[in-house]
Amino acid sequence: MNTTASHDTIRAVQWHGDRLRLLDQRRLPAEEIWFDSTTSGDVTQAIRDLAVRGAPAIGIAAAWGVVLAAKTGEDLPAAMATLRAARPTAVNLMWALDRMKARVDSGADAAALEAEAQAIQDEDLAANRHMGELGAALIAPGSHVMTHCNTGSLATAGYGTALGVIRAGVEAGRIEQVFAGETRPWQQGARLTMWELVRDGIPARLIADSAASHLMKDGKVTWVIVGADRIAANGDTANKIGTYQLAIAARHHGVKFMVVAPSTTVDMATASGDDIEIELRDATELLSVSGTRTVIEGAEAWNPVFDVTPAELIDAIVTERGVILKPDEVQMRSMFP
Amino acid sequence: MNTTASHDTIRAVQWHGDRLRLLDQRRLPAEEIWFDSTTSGDVTQAIRDLAVRGAPAIGIAAAWGVVLAAKTGEDLPAAMATLRAARPTAVNLMWALDRMKARVDSGADAAALEAEAQAIQDEDLAANRHMGELGAALIAPGSHVMTHCNTGSLATAGYGTALGVIRAGVEAGRIEQVFAGETRPWQQGARLTMWELVRDGIPARLIADSAASHLMKDGKVTWVIVGADRIAANGDTANKIGTYQLAIAARHHGVKFMVVAPSTTVDMATASGDDIEIELRDATELLSVSGTRTVIEGAEAWNPVFDVTPAELIDAIVTERGVILKPDEVQMRSMFP
Repeated sequence: MNTTASHDTIRAVQWHGDRLRLLDQRRLPAEEIWFDSTTSGDVTQAIRDLAVRGAPAIGIAAAWGVVLAAKTGEDLPAAMATLRAARPTAVNLMWALDRMKARVDSGADAAALEAEAQAIQDEDLAANRHMGELGAALIAPGSHVMTHCNTGSLATAGYGTALGVIRAGVEAGRIEQVFAGETRPWQQGARLTMWELVRDGIPARLIADSAASHLMKDGKVTWVIVGADRIAANGDTANKIGTYQLAIAARHHGVKFMVVAPSTTVDMATASGDDIEIELRDATELLSVSGTRTVIEGAEAWNPVFDVTPAELIDAIVTERGVILKPDEVQMRSMFP
Repeated sequence: MNTTASHDTIRAVQWHGDRLRLLDQRRLPAEEIWFDSTTSGDVTQAIRDLAVRGAPAIGIAAAWGVVLAAKTGEDLPAAMATLRAARPTAVNLMWALDRMKARVDSGADAAALEAEAQAIQDEDLAANRHMGELGAALIAPGSHVMTHCNTGSLATAGYGTALGVIRAGVEAGRIEQVFAGETRPWQQGARLTMWELVRDGIPARLIADSAASHLMKDGKVTWVIVGADRIAANGDTANKIGTYQLAIAARHHGVKFMVVAPSTTVDMATASGDDIEIELRDATELLSVSGTRTVIEGAEAWNPVFDVTPAELIDAIVTERGVILKPDEVQMRSMFP
């Protein structure tokens, strides 16, 4: 199943008037299973269980969760509080709920909330397209690039953040070859990014996360391009575990490092990466594979699923508002006053 | 099943007079399956298929393969050539076969070859014990350390190289906590190192390979301790994929980096890491987990299973001959004339 037009990417978060239809990302690529959420509790569960993941997609799904709560007569403040607590690191979730809450507080009815959620979703897609162009313009023709986790259509309203830049870069002839890290333990790169890239016909190779430095050594990779779950006021960026390690490796090899995220990911109330809560998930994600125990009984594991890349290791932050090169607090405050 | 005495570690390569008994490391930790090799071809297959792995263990198994060839009247030069080609990166394989070949060329009978293989195995165990003491002496009391892949009893004649240092360090009260990287794609850290550490009752936690830098950031880890598949004349070290990335991360955080390997791993005929052949294994190792495809059909992967850490990122090389701090060619030539 190849889609040749890269703009025609899949929409994994779909509103159907009275229910939110989500593509179950835990089942990909083996199965394309869609399921419906009809209450805010369903949406909370889907976020918590990673059926929907990716910072922008989580925010969009949560906005629709508020719409469902309004339509079914749930207690709105309680529903919003539960949605907010579903995952701690991605700020888009809090941003989308704040935006919905402002409408709720101003007395919006269900129809108005529905329009607001639709606007959040539409704006995310438009932001991705614009970021794609901005980011791709930074990349020299014929480049090899690396990415991590999944930041594509599946993680957003469509098209993608880092993967949107890659899509735009391929289309513009700037990117010749993509390398995707597996992204342990949840394998978002292996399962989801490769699924998107192969469907789009983009030349891509999967690598073990630990092979990135060996790959960079030959000098062909010129950019590492990643998404973000939260960008602090000084440019420090929380993203999927392994991002920080890639940034260190990139700097060591003179490879450039680009963060691509909508402005909804920027949290100017967070001074630096030190203030970002890093989600620790259950050790079983490392101790088992597909439900089968792979490590001796009694073993312990440490499973942080995000890390923070300090701004000094980032060469460019791309949002729909523009590009910040060598990010620091002064530039961040200028673009996000 | 806990063994309290750390010296009483498992022996995964066992000679039984007319057959070589190997613990199938592909089945651990789920099952402890032993199987017998009665020809050199069986041993070649076991090495190629990773039933036996770890540079020293491969060399020892190959030596026993030559004994089997002699006992069963195989063509000895052909048997040795086949064993030598089983895997390209670990030099211990070539070293053990060269040593056996010297005995063959001098007209040794099967009994004399058996004695030579036993000597190779015994010397490896003795070297491990001595390296354990030398390496542990470098570590400050109360340290947290990290390791990669499996370098323990399973990878050697017993006790281990890097894991031998860790065992000795725990016993001496110098090491309080061990972190083991999963070691994708073959999960030697998750499956084998955790198996050894839990059995020994050593405080250990498994981490995703990509979490190493995030772990180092808090400053508690003071040493990364790894094994080697080949050490070049200038100190450049080939080891499991991901080692180089750990060395870069360690240097970035001021964490020390120790390579532990018997002198049989040193190849003074190899000038530098650039001259070391890096084994590429089949892409399916990344595209499937336990035989189940996890990546979309049509996807490609790049699967180098070793990388080279340049000497300038290594703080100490420990062999049974002694410790080289800040290794370079002058010191290497002095210790390995």
